Amino acid sequence: MLKIGILLFGVVAARGQWNVMPMPSSIHAGSGAPLTIEQNFSVALEGVSDPRLEHAARRLTARIALLTGMTFRDGGAALVLRTESAGNAVQSVDEDESYRLTVNAQGAVITAPNPLGAMHGLETFYQLITNDATGWVVPAVAIEDHPRFAWRGMHIDVARHFIPLDVIRRNLDGMAAVKLNVFHWHLSDDQGFRIESKRFPKLQELGSDGLYYTQDGVREIIQYARDRGIRVVPEFDMPGHAASWLVGYPELAATPGPFQIIRTWGVHDPTMDPANPEVYTFLDAFIGEMALLFPDAYFHIGGDEVKNKAQQDLQEGFNQQVEKIVTKYGKRMEGWDEILNPALPKNIVIQSWRGPKSLAEAARQGYQGILSSGYYLDHIEPSSKLYLVDPLGDQSATLATEEKARILGGEVCMWTEYVSAENIESRIWPRTAAIAERFWSPVETRDVADMYRRLDLVDSELDQLGLRHNSNYRIMLERLAGSTDIDALKVLADVTEPGALALRHHVNPDATQSTPLNRLVDAARPDSAVARHFSGLVDRYLANRNEAASRSEIRQWLTLWSGNDAKLEPLIARRQILKDAAPVSQVLSKIAAEALASAKMNRAELEAAQKPIGDMRLAVAQAIARLIEAEGRVRSKQ
Amino acid sequence: MLKIGILLFGVVAARGQWNVMPMPSSIHAGSGAPLTIEQNFSVALEGVSDPRLEHAARRLTARIALLTGMTFRDGGAALVLRTESAGNAVQSVDEDESYRLTVNAQGAVITAPNPLGAMHGLETFYQLITNDATGWVVPAVAIEDHPRFAWRGMHIDVARHFIPLDVIRRNLDGMAAVKLNVFHWHLSDDQGFRIESKRFPKLQELGSDGLYYTQDGVREIIQYARDRGIRVVPEFDMPGHAASWLVGYPELAATPGPFQIIRTWGVHDPTMDPANPEVYTFLDAFIGEMALLFPDAYFHIGGDEVKNKAQQDLQEGFNQQVEKIVTKYGKRMEGWDEILNPALPKNIVIQSWRGPKSLAEAARQGYQGILSSGYYLDHIEPSSKLYLVDPLGDQSATLATEEKARILGGEVCMWTEYVSAENIESRIWPRTAAIAERFWSPVETRDVADMYRRLDLVDSELDQLGLRHNSNYRIMLERLAGSTDIDALKVLADVTEPGALALRHHVNPDATQSTPLNRLVDAARPDSAVARHFSGLVDRYLANRNEAASRSEIRQWLTLWSGNDAKLEPLIARRQILKDAAPVSQVLSKIAAEALASAKMNRAELEAAQKPIGDMRLAVAQAIARLIEAEGRVRSKQ
Repeated sequence: MLKIGILLFGVVAARGQWNVMPMPSSIHAGSGAPLTIEQNFSVALEGVSDPRLEHAARRLTARIALLTGMTFRDGGAALVLRTESAGNAVQSVDEDESYRLTVNAQGAVITAPNPLGAMHGLETFYQLITNDATGWVVPAVAIEDHPRFAWRGMHIDVARHFIPLDVIRRNLDGMAAVKLNVFHWHLSDDQGFRIESKRFPKLQELGSDGLYYTQDGVREIIQYARDRGIRVVPEFDMPGHAASWLVGYPELAATPGPFQIIRTWGVHDPTMDPANPEVYTFLDAFIGEMALLFPDAYFHIGGDEVKNKAQQDLQEGFNQQVEKIVTKYGKRMEGWDEILNPALPKNIVIQSWRGPKSLAEAARQGYQGILSSGYYLDHIEPSSKLYLVDPLGDQSATLATEEKARILGGEVCMWTEYVSAENIESRIWPRTAAIAERFWSPVETRDVADMYRRLDLVDSELDQLGLRHNSNYRIMLERLAGSTDIDALKVLADVTEPGALALRHHVNPDATQSTPLNRLVDAARPDSAVARHFSGLVDRYLANRNEAASRSEIRQWLTLWSGNDAKLEPLIARRQILKDAAPVSQVLSKIAAEALASAKMNRAELEAAQKPIGDMRLAVAQAIARLIEAEGRVRSKQ
Repeated sequence: MLKIGILLFGVVAARGQWNVMPMPSSIHAGSGAPLTIEQNFSVALEGVSDPRLEHAARRLTARIALLTGMTFRDGGAALVLRTESAGNAVQSVDEDESYRLTVNAQGAVITAPNPLGAMHGLETFYQLITNDATGWVVPAVAIEDHPRFAWRGMHIDVARHFIPLDVIRRNLDGMAAVKLNVFHWHLSDDQGFRIESKRFPKLQELGSDGLYYTQDGVREIIQYARDRGIRVVPEFDMPGHAASWLVGYPELAATPGPFQIIRTWGVHDPTMDPANPEVYTFLDAFIGEMALLFPDAYFHIGGDEVKNKAQQDLQEGFNQQVEKIVTKYGKRMEGWDEILNPALPKNIVIQSWRGPKSLAEAARQGYQGILSSGYYLDHIEPSSKLYLVDPLGDQSATLATEEKARILGGEVCMWTEYVSAENIESRIWPRTAAIAERFWSPVETRDVADMYRRLDLVDSELDQLGLRHNSNYRIMLERLAGSTDIDALKVLADVTEPGALALRHHVNPDATQSTPLNRLVDAARPDSAVARHFSGLVDRYLANRNEAASRSEIRQWLTLWSGNDAKLEPLIARRQILKDAAPVSQVLSKIAAEALASAKMNRAELEAAQKPIGDMRLAVAQAIARLIEAEGRVRSKQ
């Protein structure tokens, strides 16, 4: 990696050592002393005035006050924010989000064409603040930055499990911190209709169990998002995934009612009837109401997974009719892969859950698109894998330049079959920060080790912002243990990963919306940091078996794990809620003990440890197996 | 301890094994199987209807849903709440708070004269829920319960550091969980005037830095507290501790202005002028306004620490005049010890910060009183000590029965010189739960070990309720470390205790309201749980040196600590904010290493480790010293 930095008060400013995520397009260390944050720190606004800038400057100052513990008064304008124009009244997909940030000992200056870039610059500035041996400083630096993709979204399904507004707000804070700019709000599905319609109140009254957002609440979220440079795109899934609509309005259905909210997962029959003209009258009034509420230029109509073959054949006609309604209300239609059809105008946007191939195909046909395939958080893949999925990946290599330009970006997807308001943040963060970097940073930013180094910092930044991905973890473990004494349980949970959607469904085919999400599998988090650390130790040790430090630490971990089941077993025996933790705990202690011993081990046993145990996975099993394999201690039993 | 229980599905129901805090007046295990909490659990209200009961039942159901992960529908009324009367429109100090709770396999019944007792019963019911090997159960039990003292308060100073409403709300949740019933809100002091006056707006406009509560906000808190069986008593400190009033209204002062908000601690000169008739005109209008806002029967006028001798002499007359105003608006006056004077009527209440002696003296003179001396949380004493302080302690032994009856209870005091919105919960909780038991439970409930066992459970319960005493600890450590890698820092912080008010003032005499509260001393928590655990191990080991388990665990801890400074030192060297952690870290590793070694150690060094290190204390130093002493390895160096 190119080393372009110099030594500044102990801060090594090599490219790989910048503490910024997503990595800027261009970053160069300055030659002077750093800027010191002092009691008179303040942000001065120059150029246009916009309430977003004032709010963002106030938030930044409050965050720096919390970080440094300083109380700022009578500011000396250490940071100047120069913004050229006020930006669009409704944030648009093609707005310039670039900014420049320069810092030296005299102060910092952010210049940006509009408030979007200025706000991104403030986030970068915050990340650069560090406490060195002398105090709080920002290294001298020159940054020119702009996003690689214009559409950098996060999709949250609030239908399968309702997610309250305060959780949405926290996630918007997290999105702003990593420069995501679209919140895609999946507001209806078979399992719930989550927004108030004044025109058709039975939608929320009968379709939501009372768990829905008021229009005032939605307006507040839209304002909150705008204040953070984030667009809000609503999705109303139709004509399939629509059971919750039909509870209150069965006359829209393709088959006779009555209908109930569906409590189970998967693809279900209830569908709006594409052949019924009243459906379009209804949708015209409904979309008209929602188009007024949501100012964004795009309107997502879902359009995925229609189950009934007869309706599938009618879906093209349905989409054309709905597209006309959406256009009539001044919006551009967006939908999942299935809506792709040459009969639709070219100004719609295709969101690909099927894969980059279908996205490339859409681009070839002249459609804009965004990638979600590969960014499904409920598949519980590690950040290292999510990070390397590229909206312009292999499939797009064959595309012409203007076809490539149609690929606007991507969206992280958070589906909530096995996700609650309590653990959603641990499913989204910090992994989403790695994907956010893919959407923002130059294509060649692909160093996984450096990504993880910075991901740890962002993880901590998100904690400071109030996100609960870490806080709720401990709280859930305490609930499982029934006390604050969670040492042994945490040792296990730290190396346990929840199974992906498919595994959970396989293990618990009867799970519904009412199934408790309070077990070890729900508390355990994706991409175990302990497992990653341990795997790194094993790499180091296998590369050089004489390295005492890694050898010694590996033994410490194995000793901890091998003795852990004996400590945890009495608690598990007492508590029914911990029953499914028993086999995972036993396997962990067993293979750790095997790794410490010198006897041979059966291959079948070693392989079983690396496979799912119930609906969980032992995240350190693979690294432990590598250790045992490397010592030639595996016996193929027959 | 009397064993009155029987074995129920592995739950040993000995008196000392009940998981309830505060311990009820009477608790007896039932003879049958436990109640099982199932999907159809619900609370049925019988008798009078009161919105407080409906809200409390809904909160309980929501908490049980979170605990068990169950979604409750179409309830089977497993818990019946029978309430005889609706209670007073404004909760009063003499309202009956008793309740009875019986649980058997068929269901649970709470009966209470009014909603206060009923709500206490719900809290007890919640604490009894446990997850055993079969599922979620409540053991069969018969409880008759009532408080020992009618006044069980918590005082929070929001003047020295402003505490936002959401933090107040969380603390009210915690108070309700441990059956405290008075929130004493210290709303003004030299350092800030924290409430909106519509009559005298310069009070908050010039006296608060903009950090004050609106009257709407205050009304919400009063309602929130009432919903949880908690009275709200406001305090406006006068005639001393009043600088913040005088910024806007210097004409009230005994000396010429102008005045500023005072940023430093201690007792200051600015005082209202008792000789100025306009002061009483002002106070009449102000107290009239506040008496309408706060419905409680009591009104606290502070009255402590008047610095100026001339004003001290006039204070008796001042108090008499103010008492007439308070009475005119239908309230009873409350004040700190200093207001005690035979000229005042006997219906006032004395709050003793000077000690039980002055409280007993007041009772002898015919005044009601509450004890706060001994319950000052900023003195950073362990729960074991706070727990044994009794409002009817030694000093009251000489009192006649009717004199004793005048001692209404006590109040925990949270002064906020060195306490912020971020760490206040860690100063209040869980220690306050031990004091709450002192206020509620029979006098003979004094087993410190069992108190700590249940305190751990309450600690966890408070976490589940959303209190941040544990969550913010990690977040503060991460901020100190600048990353989520806090292992070594947490090893140190876990055995570090913040110094008490006096020590902090001694070490940092220049500290002000603007001094950052984001250092190790601010993150570290009182009554180190790790130190308590380690001290218990040392006790066991010294009682029986052949006990392998304690010996082995002691060695593990000492090994961890002796190597910790080497791990932490590089981080401390990089981060100025951690500078004052260095000496504590060094002493910890040094004495742990000495304890592991076999050489003799200097007494002076061992004693120094047990003394303050800067503004902190090493909580394990005393136990380590006992180990070294017991082995005769201490050398008095000369």
